[in-house]
Amino acid sequence: MNVLAIGAHPDDIEFGCGGTLIKYAQTGHNVHMFVLTDGSFGGDTQVRRNEQRESAKFIGVKELFWGNYRDTELVCSRELILKVEEILHKITPDVVFFNFWADVHQDHRAAAQAAVSATRYIKEALFFEVPTTQHFEPDIFVDIQDVLDKKLQLLKIHNSQVDRTRVENLSIVESAQSCANFRGYQGRVRYAEGFKALRVLKDIK
Amino acid sequence: MNVLAIGAHPDDIEFGCGGTLIKYAQTGHNVHMFVLTDGSFGGDTQVRRNEQRESAKFIGVKELFWGNYRDTELVCSRELILKVEEILHKITPDVVFFNFWADVHQDHRAAAQAAVSATRYIKEALFFEVPTTQHFEPDIFVDIQDVLDKKLQLLKIHNSQVDRTRVENLSIVESAQSCANFRGYQGRVRYAEGFKALRVLKDIK
Amino acid sequence: MNVLAIGAHPDDIEFGCGGTLIKYAQTGHNVHMFVLTDGSFGGDTQVRRNEQRESAKFIGVKELFWGNYRDTELVCSRELILKVEEILHKITPDVVFFNFWADVHQDHRAAAQAAVSATRYIKEALFFEVPTTQHFEPDIFVDIQDVLDKKLQLLKIHNSQVDRTRVENLSIVESAQSCANFRGYQGRVRYAEGFKALRVLKDIK
Amino acid sequence: MNVLAIGAHPDDIEFGCGGTLIKYAQTGHNVHMFVLTDGSFGGDTQVRRNEQRESAKFIGVKELFWGNYRDTELVCSRELILKVEEILHKITPDVVFFNFWADVHQDHRAAAQAAVSATRYIKEALFFEVPTTQHFEPDIFVDIQDVLDKKLQLLKIHNSQVDRTRVENLSIVESAQSCANFRGYQGRVRYAEGFKALRVLKDIK
Amino acid sequence: MNVLAIGAHPDDIEFGCGGTLIKYAQTGHNVHMFVLTDGSFGGDTQVRRNEQRESAKFIGVKELFWGNYRDTELVCSRELILKVEEILHKITPDVVFFNFWADVHQDHRAAAQAAVSATRYIKEALFFEVPTTQHFEPDIFVDIQDVLDKKLQLLKIHNSQVDRTRVENLSIVESAQSCANFRGYQGRVRYAEGFKALRVLKDIK
Amino acid sequence: MNVLAIGAHPDDIEFGCGGTLIKYAQTGHNVHMFVLTDGSFGGDTQVRRNEQRESAKFIGVKELFWGNYRDTELVCSRELILKVEEILHKITPDVVFFNFWADVHQDHRAAAQAAVSATRYIKEALFFEVPTTQHFEPDIFVDIQDVLDKKLQLLKIHNSQVDRTRVENLSIVESAQSCANFRGYQGRVRYAEGFKALRVLKDIK
Repeated sequence: MNVLAIGAHPDDIEFGCGGTLIKYAQTGHNVHMFVLTDGSFGGDTQVRRNEQRESAKFIGVKELFWGNYRDTELVCSRELILKVEEILHKITPDVVFFNFWADVHQDHRAAAQAAVSATRYIKEALFFEVPTTQHFEPDIFVDIQDVLDKKLQLLKIHNSQVDRTRVENLSIVESAQSCANFRGYQGRVRYAEGFKALRVLKDIK
Repeated sequence: MNVLAIGAHPDDIEFGCGGTLIKYAQTGHNVHMFVLTDGSFGGDTQVRRNEQRESAKFIGVKELFWGNYRDTELVCSRELILKVEEILHKITPDVVFFNFWADVHQDHRAAAQAAVSATRYIKEALFFEVPTTQHFEPDIFVDIQDVLDKKLQLLKIHNSQVDRTRVENLSIVESAQSCANFRGYQGRVRYAEGFKALRVLKDIK
Repeated sequence: MNVLAIGAHPDDIEFGCGGTLIKYAQTGHNVHMFVLTDGSFGGDTQVRRNEQRESAKFIGVKELFWGNYRDTELVCSRELILKVEEILHKITPDVVFFNFWADVHQDHRAAAQAAVSATRYIKEALFFEVPTTQHFEPDIFVDIQDVLDKKLQLLKIHNSQVDRTRVENLSIVESAQSCANFRGYQGRVRYAEGFKALRVLKDIK
Repeated sequence: MNVLAIGAHPDDIEFGCGGTLIKYAQTGHNVHMFVLTDGSFGGDTQVRRNEQRESAKFIGVKELFWGNYRDTELVCSRELILKVEEILHKITPDVVFFNFWADVHQDHRAAAQAAVSATRYIKEALFFEVPTTQHFEPDIFVDIQDVLDKKLQLLKIHNSQVDRTRVENLSIVESAQSCANFRGYQGRVRYAEGFKALRVLKDIK
Repeated sequence: MNVLAIGAHPDDIEFGCGGTLIKYAQTGHNVHMFVLTDGSFGGDTQVRRNEQRESAKFIGVKELFWGNYRDTELVCSRELILKVEEILHKITPDVVFFNFWADVHQDHRAAAQAAVSATRYIKEALFFEVPTTQHFEPDIFVDIQDVLDKKLQLLKIHNSQVDRTRVENLSIVESAQSCANFRGYQGRVRYAEGFKALRVLKDIK
Repeated sequence: MNVLAIGAHPDDIEFGCGGTLIKYAQTGHNVHMFVLTDGSFGGDTQVRRNEQRESAKFIGVKELFWGNYRDTELVCSRELILKVEEILHKITPDVVFFNFWADVHQDHRAAAQAAVSATRYIKEALFFEVPTTQHFEPDIFVDIQDVLDKKLQLLKIHNSQVDRTRVENLSIVESAQSCANFRGYQGRVRYAEGFKALRVLKDIK
């Protein structure tokens, strides 16, 4: 199975579906990441690139793609949509994860819109959440209890971002654990990642 | 795997998820039906009961349960919720299908509300649609192309209902085929049944 | 009465409100079409232009306007809004039809947003649907039973597009008929086109 | 043309669609009213009944029906739905107006749900608003500028209710005029009544 | 200032707005609680009553009212609405908190609907969430960082309920802390309670 | 307390929250205005600038900022977001008011999106409405009865706009008064301004 996760910035994917990707990789599926911007607004570009590479390695990602857009400048243009489609053609994913269209961060909105357009013929397309996402009501859940520690480890690998929540004394690690527990109950397990289905073609087998 | 479908009236289940149930049964899963009312408003009770039995047999249903409520009089009471919970305890289903909460028919609304309450600890709960459903935006699709004829056959078995659409020259069979084609495109296949996820705990394997 | 339909691509209008336009033209009203892009992504530009012209003729359209934008590159800019306003000033339509704002295709979203802005003083403005439209819940219906064959004929005239649904064995003609039947029941007739009202000033007479 | 308006209490109909009913009656259509409760919570039953009769006469209503339910005790039961259906069978209305399903008043919610079910085969069904309605986004508007004074007169006829808004110094007459002006702009006229379409089968002629 | 919190069951209020009530009480305001059912479905009635009394005492509640309805049997009847209105008349609260109308538990839905009706002239009315709430998007937040421990203590006082989450190894205390952290970020603080405004009359001073 | 209002055009702020700003200023708070475009589409730029200055003075605004964008050409770009952030850094507002994201005017949509992004760490952020706003359901209200006349005066100061409603015989002054009365009832007072909370961190004191 081919899995693709698309995120606007380094560490978006890890917060949104890091646990799920770890489970896919552990099961032997091919996991790919496509990070659209360089994260230059949130820190040194080279540092962030290295953190992203290390995180991808930790997950067991087969290939990490970069969009090389400038952080905070992402726009849902035809050019961006084509770039996403190019990756889709290369990977032919069975399932694609990406940012949600309602978000206070403009890059997340643009990434979501481009992904919605580019994945229009994909049979499983799921939105994930990050802390700035709005109006997010997940209906698909993945139990991540057995990989929660690893998920939190991913966020620690993005070391330059851990304390950049802009809320006093709040680390992104605590935030990720609480989110997992909050979504967990909704999926009737202790810790989960929650997704909103854009489209799922369910297999009966 | 244990599958349960709950419908307010005879033939609701068939329209909403008949194709999916056939696929579950064909694959060897245990399919159960729970029909809440006697369908007395839409025809002779005994006729409808027989049609429902024949349809269940055609699908390969393991057990057909009856709620024995009076058609058009269903109310989302504690008693109804407990009755649904009783069936859930007996079957311990892995997935449950039922009517949607927005519908112009009062029985469908009551069935949906009771099912939402009763299935609160179930890990996969999906709403289906019938012709009177409103505001329905499915996000989960099942490809039913290879069982479409069988699904239409199910609706013909409910012979007393085929021409009761209240629209001139419109049979429920044509309506079901169009619906399958309409939802099919949304799921990127030719014919599909569309579901709205109340809650899906997705397995990574 | 002056009628205007605005579509992002050749054949959007036909799928969305072709039957309704035929009925307007048959009744003697002045029907106009405004096609924003050249459809170059979906086929040869000249071929698509000819198909559109033939379709307009078949409907009995009084004048066909072209936006001459490049397919897949439409953006809701001030310039696009002004272009739409210009056509509105020329025609002074009593009713305007256009794409819906939620759609997986970026051009459809842009066309919808521009039309919403440009028609802000128009007293009857209605969204139509195409196969890629999302979250569409029509509340206004037009019975097209007596012109269904003609509507399907329109889609066949766009011959280069008939089999471009990207779903195996699904032609746009089958899709249009199913959609008409699906919406028909919601409007309590056999075949209908469904619209979502942005604004309707209802006449009591 | 046969027109029916259904309201939970005396004066609901007048606030929601009084101007529109006056225009229908002036044009020569047959206007009917169905008032579900006796309004006993808001005043003396006999007084309210007389006010309602006078108001119906002022509009030019052909027949005024009473549900005789107790004010504040309305429930969306099968019995209520059947009573509404009975009136529908008697009148065979071309258009039906009724309360909206989101409202802080329980009777309005019950009236709306019953009307949604009972009108399921009616081709034009429209929700109206009253001051307690919530989440109301009208998309159909009727210009009532030329009958605004008459509409305000209707509310004055319900003399026992004029100052029962529970807001200091606010009369229902001022409230109705402001609402007409507020909705007017949305319909691009000076004064309008706004409706939310449950279903409209639009005639092309 | 007079504050009232209404909950369907013992411990609903504590989960939903326990921290906020503690802050109100600490500041010297009069805090009241109205618990509608006896909680008999979740444990021994007398035990639950005692837990609720102890919790009220811990918060510093001025008066604890009981509805004495049977757990799981709450219905939004006129009688329930009148009972809530009676309490409102007695307390004349400046702000009222209560369950949200979308919830998989039927009692929570009934409590919410009754509260929406009963509080129709109250100038500050806020919905709170509990673990079973659906579609909840809070827009009002109260920083509870300095009383978080006390809030968790409240949930421990409801000792019979701590491990009744029906999710393996999940205690309601962990769930409440995660929820506070999850909502905290949305309010831009570390720990918060989130509310959805039904209506807030904001004071400029 | 520092208050900031952001509007796409001269007079948007006055219609949306003029009364509230007057109350803030009267109470002694520091009120600031940020007008993004020059209003050149609605009249002579210099005239509109003067009107805006006079209105700001009437309110008692401490500082009026100009974005100097061209009317009708506003786009939610990174550059616009940064400009808004710059003002936020300068003022460090306790509360920010701005246009709503659903609006038929493209500038209002762009202003709203930029403000949503720029205010992402602000603890009180509120959307206001103008006549072209769509889908607006306010949940926060400010009683403006005692400053209604002053609010209407503000709109008269924007003299070039008073009769530019594009609706015959409708002045913006009448429209503003009706809106205040319409929203007033929803907030349970006679005249109010209604706001939709993006985020409010409520203080308990």
